[in-house]
Formats: sequence, C-alpha cells, structure tokens
Amino acid sequence: MIIELIEKKKRGEALSAPEIHAMIHAYVNKEIADYQMSAFLMAVWFQGMNMDEMIALCDAMMHSGEVLDLSDLDGVTCDKHSTGGVGDKTSIVLVPLVAACGGIVAKMSGRGLGHTGGTIDKLESIPGFQTEVAPSDFKRQVREIHAAIVGQSSRFVVADQMLYALRDVTATVDSLPLIATSILSKKLAAGSDVILLDVKYGEGAFMKTKADAQVLADTMCAIGAHFQRKVRAVISDMNEPLGHAIGNTLEVLEAIDTLQGRGPDDFRTLCIEEAGILLAMADLAADESEGRQRARSALEDGSAFAMLCQMVEAQGGDVRYVKEPQRFAKAPYIKQLPALKEGTIRALHARSFGELAMELGAGRKCKGDRIDPRVGIVLHHKCGETVAADTCIATIHANRELSEDWIRRFYEAVEIEESSRDL
Amino acid sequence: MIIELIEKKKRGEALSAPEIHAMIHAYVNKEIADYQMSAFLMAVWFQGMNMDEMIALCDAMMHSGEVLDLSDLDGVTCDKHSTGGVGDKTSIVLVPLVAACGGIVAKMSGRGLGHTGGTIDKLESIPGFQTEVAPSDFKRQVREIHAAIVGQSSRFVVADQMLYALRDVTATVDSLPLIATSILSKKLAAGSDVILLDVKYGEGAFMKTKADAQVLADTMCAIGAHFQRKVRAVISDMNEPLGHAIGNTLEVLEAIDTLQGRGPDDFRTLCIEEAGILLAMADLAADESEGRQRARSALEDGSAFAMLCQMVEAQGGDVRYVKEPQRFAKAPYIKQLPALKEGTIRALHARSFGELAMELGAGRKCKGDRIDPRVGIVLHHKCGETVAADTCIATIHANRELSEDWIRRFYEAVEIEESSRDL
Repeated sequence: MIIELIEKKKRGEALSAPEIHAMIHAYVNKEIADYQMSAFLMAVWFQGMNMDEMIALCDAMMHSGEVLDLSDLDGVTCDKHSTGGVGDKTSIVLVPLVAACGGIVAKMSGRGLGHTGGTIDKLESIPGFQTEVAPSDFKRQVREIHAAIVGQSSRFVVADQMLYALRDVTATVDSLPLIATSILSKKLAAGSDVILLDVKYGEGAFMKTKADAQVLADTMCAIGAHFQRKVRAVISDMNEPLGHAIGNTLEVLEAIDTLQGRGPDDFRTLCIEEAGILLAMADLAADESEGRQRARSALEDGSAFAMLCQMVEAQGGDVRYVKEPQRFAKAPYIKQLPALKEGTIRALHARSFGELAMELGAGRKCKGDRIDPRVGIVLHHKCGETVAADTCIATIHANRELSEDWIRRFYEAVEIEESSRDL
Repeated sequence: MIIELIEKKKRGEALSAPEIHAMIHAYVNKEIADYQMSAFLMAVWFQGMNMDEMIALCDAMMHSGEVLDLSDLDGVTCDKHSTGGVGDKTSIVLVPLVAACGGIVAKMSGRGLGHTGGTIDKLESIPGFQTEVAPSDFKRQVREIHAAIVGQSSRFVVADQMLYALRDVTATVDSLPLIATSILSKKLAAGSDVILLDVKYGEGAFMKTKADAQVLADTMCAIGAHFQRKVRAVISDMNEPLGHAIGNTLEVLEAIDTLQGRGPDDFRTLCIEEAGILLAMADLAADESEGRQRARSALEDGSAFAMLCQMVEAQGGDVRYVKEPQRFAKAPYIKQLPALKEGTIRALHARSFGELAMELGAGRKCKGDRIDPRVGIVLHHKCGETVAADTCIATIHANRELSEDWIRRFYEAVEIEESSRDL
C-alpha cells in the first residue's frame, strides 16, 4: 500500500483523505517502515501537498494521540505558537499577560534544538519549576488560575513526534506542508478556541523571507479554519535577536523585567501586539487597539507580573527568584565586549548569535545535551543604533574563558558601518 | 554527514566523488540508516546525477564486494546484460553461441521478480543444474569450456544489493542514474573485457519509450568507457513478448530449439544480432556482419547446441533433458485458447502476459515465492499476423483450471483488428 502512495506523491498526484489517514495510522502502528516514510516525506518536499491533503494530514496527526478537551472551562481558551527564533521569550510574557486580561491560556511548549531556544528550557531556570505535568493537573491549574505553560506530553500527536524525529535526520524539515501540519496538529490537539501563530522570518528563523513566512501563515490559517478554530497569524522579523537577552536565565530575567513594565522596546511591543490580537479574538476586547491598551495597563499595574508569580507557584517554582531576580545563579565568567569601531549597527546576525549562545551551553547541539541555564549573551544595542568605539555592545555570560575563535565569530555577527567623516 | 549530502542532492547540487565513496562505504557498514538512504534515493529520483557522480557511484558499488579477475584467462572475455522483459531467454542461447564461436563468456544472472523472468530460474528447470557456484569453480569452468551462467554471488556488489532491496520498497526503482549504475556496477565487478547491454523498451520493460531506452544505453556506454571496458548497447522492442514462450521450462525448450537452428524468427534474429556484435567487439570477427554469419553457422552446424550440452553437464545438469526435451515434466492442465474473431493481431501486451504467467506460477510476486517450472504461456502468433476465428492463438500450461478472470484478462492482452469486409 505505502509503495503505491509514495509512487503517487512522487508523480505529483494528490493523496485522498482516507489514504493519508490510513498511512498515518499504519506508521504509528509500525506497519510502515521509517525508510518508506522518509522516501514519502522527500517526495512531499518536492511535490508539496494541496489544501485537502494538508487538512487530512493535520487531522490524522492530531488524532494520533490524546486530544485535550478544554470545552468545559468557563471562558475562551487561548493558545499561541511561535515558529521559533533567537531570544524569543514571548510566551513567558504573553501567557500571564493575556491571563491577567481575562483570557484562559493553556500552553504546551517545546524544548530548544540547534540555534533556537525553547520556552520549557527557559522556564526550568526557575528552581523547582515543573514542566512535566499530567494532563489532569494541567487542566486543573488552567481552571484555577487561567495560565499554565507545560512541556508537550509524549502522548499527544504521536505521529507528529515520530515524523519530526525522522524529518530531523533526513533533511526534510524545511517543507511547507510538513511544517504547517506539524504546528497546527499540535495546537489543535491542545484544544484551545483561539490560536495565534507568530511566524518568524529572517536569518534566525526557518522561513528566510517575509514572503515565505506569509505563505506559511496563510496556509496555517486556512487549515485552521477548516477545524472550526479561530486561527490568526502575525509575521515577525527574526533577522536580529528579539529583545536583548539570549540564554535561559537571561531571557527569564528579561521576561520578568517586561512583565514589570520595563524591558526592551521591540520585545515589549511584540508582546503587546500579540496580546491585543488574542484579546480581540477571544472577545475580551472590542478590537485589537483596545486589547493592546488593556495589555499595556496589565504590564504597568503589576497584574501581569502577579499572574506570572501565581503560575510559577502553581507549577512548584520558587517564586522568590521571580520576585528577587538577583537570586538567580550567575555564570562564573562574565565578559564585556566593546565595539571595535564607531558607527551604526547594520546587522546583528540572529542565527550566529543563536549558535554562539548554544556553544556557550545555552542550547543543545544534539537531543539530550545538557543545558547550562546561567550562560548566554546580552546585546546592549539594536540594529540602527549608533555606537562609539569601545562602547560595550554585549555582555557574555560563560562558564569558561571565551576562545579566540568564539570572539572572532562574535564580531563577525556584528556589522557596524563606519560613520562618514566627511559630513 | 549524510544529512548534508541529502540536503545537497535535494537542492540539486552535485556530490563529489569522495562524498559518494564515503556514503556508500558508510551505508555498507550500517553507519547510515536505511531511512536516510531512502530519502537520498528519492532526492536522486527528482534531481538526477551527473556523469561524474554516476561514475563515482558505479565505482563505489563495484568495489563494495568481491570483484572477479578474469585477466589471466587466455582470450577475450564477454558478458551481456538485458534490462529484462517477458519471454527473454536470450542468455541461454547467446552464452553457448558466442562460446561456440571462440568467445569466453562468464555470465552472472539474476532471478525473476514481478512480470519479468530470470535466467537463473529458467536454467533451474533443467534437473540438477547448479546455479550457486563458488567464484573459483565458476572461473575454472569458464577456463575449461569457455561458458558458464551462474547466479550472482551475495559477496558481489554488496552496496547494489542493499540499495536495490531498498529501492524496491520505496518507489525509487525507476531512476535513470540508479538503474545505470546498478547494472554497470554488476557487469564491471563480473570482470569481462567486452560487455553488451540489451536495453529493452516498451510495455513489458522498465523503459517505456525507445527514447528513454536510448538515453539509458548512452549513459551506460559513457560510464563504461570511463572504466576502460568495451561497452556497447542494443535497443530492443519489448512491447510484445520475445519469441513465443513465457515460463521457465517452456523458455528453455524454445532456447534449445533455437540452438538447434530452429526457433521463432524474432528471437533467433536477436540472438544472431547480439552474437555478431559481441564477436566483433571481441575481435573474433572482422565486423558484425561476419560475426552474424559465424553465429548462424554455429546454430546450424550444431556447435552452439553442443556447447549448451557441455555447459549443462559442467554445472551438474542432466543433459538427457536437453537432448531429449520430451523428458521435461509437463504441466497438468494444458489448454488451447482460440482467437475470438478473424483479423490481424495489433498488440500482444507484454506486461500483461508477464503478469498472467506469473499468476500461473511461472514468476514471483514477492521475493521467496516458489516457482512452478512447468507452467506458462506459448503464443502461436506474433503481432502483424492474421488469424481466422477459432485459430488457436495460445497454449496455456497451468497447474490448475484457469479462472474466468484469468481468461478474461488473457483476451484483454490480445488486440485483434477485424479485417474489413468491404475490400
């Protein structure tokens, strides 16, 4: 059976919904070998999938494991997903922020791999914080305090987990229908009524161009509509890291700062924008503008930060760390790096910073690698800003001396255009 | 490493020779998983391979197992390969025929799968005939009588055997670079000086069009030239079955008939043509025309048939069967099928007859299926011939009653155009 399906896809024909359901069912039951599925995935990479195929694949993957039923919660449930980037700690702010404004946010997140970090790794910087939570406890917490961020259960979207692991080792990750259905099947299985997707583009993201990100966003919204969920997408820039901090504890600190009404402008603006959309989608605000206003208030009046504290306590975390951030363990080697010349910062290459932070120990090269929560990079300037020679442009938090090669590559990731002396 | 190579091929870039050698080496040593290799093969299906890549792949596969050294034999060694078809018993005639004319023919052959038969299965119809022969015994026989047809040793072209098994179950068989390198790596490892390739096209062949067959033939000749072997190819029609007989004993009987100066015209002509080319390539004839003349003589003077008898004896076969063909066991159900109308035969669909014969028990649907040597189909007419209604057009040799469905499909495979009454 599977050979004929591979053949069909190879020739550019569309598979029927029953064929796709049968294939995913057989794969989860190990009746289709990995070497057949990888050939199929490569054929999909070349031939793509039409909307009906994507809907069927999404549906089959969503139902390949447990599905969370949040329909008995008293209110509109909200979820968000980011396609991942460098310095992206948005969920840590957005979940308590939207909950503080009346939303119910039940979020499952992932771990980081390669140059991109993962929300779960970041939250585990808070001593005691539990991310492996049984579905019943997860739901109870959401019912009680309206906010939770937990790791994805291995019993959810089993087919997606199997397929993702296979794609990762067969060069078939970067396929639009496979990315779209993987993301949406997870979000649909997580059960929320309204779903906001943050599709990143640029050097530090899966999608390299804004146009590609738009196609992915449109595709996911179209699939989502079929499942009677409100799905919207924002497209956001990931050419330079988001905010200032890259690294687990460092990003949690930046999220805390933002929830207390401070934080970097770009990051704060993105959080408020996304909160505004979610609140409008959930009919908790008349429109996005009102939603943004409510979000701004919640950051300033302390209610969003209070919600973070509640969530941390509910998940067993030591809330004293959140309230007194100086308690977090610091990296043993902290080094300030100066600009090498005067001028305007033209580029801060996100992917390079992601990889540099990973090499410090903030991320995983391979699954199972251990993370050092203390290490990372704090950039003190954004693109477009002007710096003098010797201005400190970054603080590096490391657990050993920086190598010359690392420092060389750090400076390659920072492009400064010298100011013209003639003017 | 392999992920980068899949990625490279996926993007349409060429792999270097060292990359291909390293990949095949790692695959044979099980350092590359089947699921990665199948993704690579599918990427090759879409992106193809350039000549340098094919030469490297052919070289790597050829050296992935034992290589036969025939250089110490006193004369020019000849080999031939057919891309396979229906009723193709050419090797059984060609090997003794060329040997009778002074060539040294050391041939390794395969078994049949699906609608195509295999020379080894056919020869095993002769009681006692051994096809599993150790390389040293194979070489001794070739030295002594200048003719041998044995099964391919599992120690030859190990990578090709692994890759072929994988392609078979991942819909990646029909890729020109993979077909070309698979065939040639086997022929190069078998060690002969001159190699004739019979590339079939049409319904019953891998290559559906003459143009595709020509491309495959040209590609294999170009690769072969790089390895300092004389390689030539003939293109031959496989829209209707070759000769009259399809099925193992039935084809051996037709081969014997042909070696005794009789046999169907189309089959006899092909054997003489191929022998002429091989004799000219081996400098045993001044040109192909002289080569054909020598082949014709060898069929008529009994020397080619005598060589078959010698070969059968050398390989343990009971030569009385070859000399007195009525000794072969007959199928229990023999049925003559009449033409359903008067007219001219316009098509005898080779692939259908291959499948119909397979279902009688002449071939394997799956590896490991047992073959019944007695069963098969003998067609009494060729395309273009005129038949009266009720003329017997075929004799079916079966081991059980023919089903109505089988008979219905038999008649679908025969296209007769009614003669116009008006003329």
